Amino acid sequence: MVQPLFKVKTIEEGLQLIRESLVFEEFLKNRHESVKIIQAGNRVLAEDIYSARNIPGFNRSTMDGYAVMAQDTFGASDGLPAYLNLVGEIRMSENPSLIIHPGETARIATGGMLPTGANAVVMLEYTEQVDGVMIEVNRSVAFWENVLKADEDLKKGELILTKGHVLRPQDIGVLAALGEEDLQVFQKPTVGVISTGDEVLPIHSQPNPGQIRDINTYALGAAIEQAGCIPEYIGIIPDDEGALEKVFSESVRDERIDILLISGGSSVGVRDYTLKILDKLTSPGTLVHGLALKPGKPTILALNQKKLIIGLPGHPVSAMMVFENVVKKLIYDYKGENQSPFQQKKINALLEHNLFSDPGREEYIRVRLEKRDNRIWAIPILGKSGTISSLVRADGYITIKLNQEGFYRGQKVTVTIF
Amino acid sequence: MVQPLFKVKTIEEGLQLIRESLVFEEFLKNRHESVKIIQAGNRVLAEDIYSARNIPGFNRSTMDGYAVMAQDTFGASDGLPAYLNLVGEIRMSENPSLIIHPGETARIATGGMLPTGANAVVMLEYTEQVDGVMIEVNRSVAFWENVLKADEDLKKGELILTKGHVLRPQDIGVLAALGEEDLQVFQKPTVGVISTGDEVLPIHSQPNPGQIRDINTYALGAAIEQAGCIPEYIGIIPDDEGALEKVFSESVRDERIDILLISGGSSVGVRDYTLKILDKLTSPGTLVHGLALKPGKPTILALNQKKLIIGLPGHPVSAMMVFENVVKKLIYDYKGENQSPFQQKKINALLEHNLFSDPGREEYIRVRLEKRDNRIWAIPILGKSGTISSLVRADGYITIKLNQEGFYRGQKVTVTIF
Repeated sequence: MVQPLFKVKTIEEGLQLIRESLVFEEFLKNRHESVKIIQAGNRVLAEDIYSARNIPGFNRSTMDGYAVMAQDTFGASDGLPAYLNLVGEIRMSENPSLIIHPGETARIATGGMLPTGANAVVMLEYTEQVDGVMIEVNRSVAFWENVLKADEDLKKGELILTKGHVLRPQDIGVLAALGEEDLQVFQKPTVGVISTGDEVLPIHSQPNPGQIRDINTYALGAAIEQAGCIPEYIGIIPDDEGALEKVFSESVRDERIDILLISGGSSVGVRDYTLKILDKLTSPGTLVHGLALKPGKPTILALNQKKLIIGLPGHPVSAMMVFENVVKKLIYDYKGENQSPFQQKKINALLEHNLFSDPGREEYIRVRLEKRDNRIWAIPILGKSGTISSLVRADGYITIKLNQEGFYRGQKVTVTIF
Repeated sequence: MVQPLFKVKTIEEGLQLIRESLVFEEFLKNRHESVKIIQAGNRVLAEDIYSARNIPGFNRSTMDGYAVMAQDTFGASDGLPAYLNLVGEIRMSENPSLIIHPGETARIATGGMLPTGANAVVMLEYTEQVDGVMIEVNRSVAFWENVLKADEDLKKGELILTKGHVLRPQDIGVLAALGEEDLQVFQKPTVGVISTGDEVLPIHSQPNPGQIRDINTYALGAAIEQAGCIPEYIGIIPDDEGALEKVFSESVRDERIDILLISGGSSVGVRDYTLKILDKLTSPGTLVHGLALKPGKPTILALNQKKLIIGLPGHPVSAMMVFENVVKKLIYDYKGENQSPFQQKKINALLEHNLFSDPGREEYIRVRLEKRDNRIWAIPILGKSGTISSLVRADGYITIKLNQEGFYRGQKVTVTIF
């Protein structure tokens, strides 16, 4: 039966209920796949990576100059230079056969391998070549100065990247250095998208008065891709219980779909069938109906075995804000992604006018950002709430948390860029 | 001829020289392509988008309730309700034929179209249905309360998104509402990548002492993709003038390549051929050799007609920092992307220890971020500069600007997440 009223939960309580019913650690065990390093950017590591070798693997010069025994340079200065015999030049990429004895030196370039006996490099600018066999050194160097020792960058066996890490370009570079051509990553979740509503038309149709083109399929699809998942576009279903049940049932059973998003019909009105149908089709079933959010209260979280089904409000603004603040967090669970507190794009700004919110729910206020006098101002988007134009006009949003009452004009606020 | 010394320029001066020699506005005129909206996420708009119609296009209820003439409710309260005749129910997606006369009302759902005569909606919770034909209203509503007027969200002809805007999920949603199934975007630039160096080996090789696997091809390739471009992997070329000239020449002439990155050989050493070869192959030629950056000083910026060629330092850390702070800005020019000051991911943190820099150059200090006592600390990565491990250990970097001398322990600094 359709519940008559929401039993509102906080986002944290909602996420907790899902995470108690579906142990993601177990779920992720069967979600590995191998990808070539060249395709691994932005993918989520499914294994810990340890260094298979020392890096650089040899004592490497970090400067152009002369390989020396540091003790030969001690006390050297412009007034009292040290004189060393030039015994050769180190060629790049080779293991030099020459040996540096006391009083000897060899020319070396950045990246070159120190010859046996040498334990430092004097930079070119602190030397002068007297003749073909004699180098004058005007500065003393410490042991291993201008040298990266064989295991100083990465030690063999050292933990470098952990399971759940999202691979950045620089990580890919270091994995290349280690020869990791194939990487174990977690599969990308596939997220199905259903739009519901008698008034919702396909993009290529001409809406009559009372009708509107489908927004959520497109906005959610792009958001799913941006979150590193694969969108599966299922279509628009009218507010007809039989039609909805047929499509929901197919999608719930479809094994390719990991997460199912259904926009519209998630509230408690007479044409809101989503909850009723999900209660029938899913097990363990509906865990949440109603979240302490504005906009976004009529949200449904349900599970059918390992599949997550989320009923989103039909209104595009609400649907997007719930995606941002609830769906994404669960998507990261499905991706196996470690959720870093530093990964959301945020900016501090001064608030242009007072904002108040009822306590007991989290509220999202869309804002424009503007630079004036070298300060960044956050300007709440005016006009009736829930206009889709507010989505394109906003650079981000301010979150008024559960226990906050609002912010004053001129106060510093954190804006999440979206 | 190879110049004996760098003629160091600031990043701003370097970008300015490129932008004076290549007028991007002209360049971008021939770079349009059409994409389906479903593939348009993260693409750069090549046209201004005006609303082709009013949205919602009809007076739409934003609540479940009753459509009324506002004036019929004036003065209504719990103690003194207004009584209205129920003349029907508005069905979703239809243009209602019924008309509201004074003293009349009709049931309406969120998203429904207001019937002629009605100019407000009373929320369901402020009403009671007395019998089949009579509704009691306990609250007065203002004109157009709980109604989104036909052109209140978007007006026909209104500018919505501008050329150069990077399409976000919410933009895609609004474009769907307008029926924009095909969008004009700028082509993705193709960025060629060449690694140079005798000591650089392919990823599948076993390095001997003195050798290292190719890092830059992979790190730069992933960074190019992340920046919304197409990487073209050209390969590793040894430090041989003839071999380098042959490959550079082919790549400079290759019309598929818009930007060419060459890592290594960009400095002033005896094996640094990049500048000499580019001077020969390109026109207008080399505009910059040496940027006031650390790391990253030995950077070359050259143009051949409309093709940008960038010589990057061979050291992976330097190459990545130059990519982040110089190459990306020029890539955005090639993409036609508006460069918003709010788009980089930044975070404020407290600095864990003093940092000093020589003035006259911009310096990038890689840092880890750590949350302690609810504050975020930025911890500079210790150890010798230029280790590749510092790239994976860092969450981001602090920029010490040209005219800054550094920061003190405990000072608030801005960390760019990367």
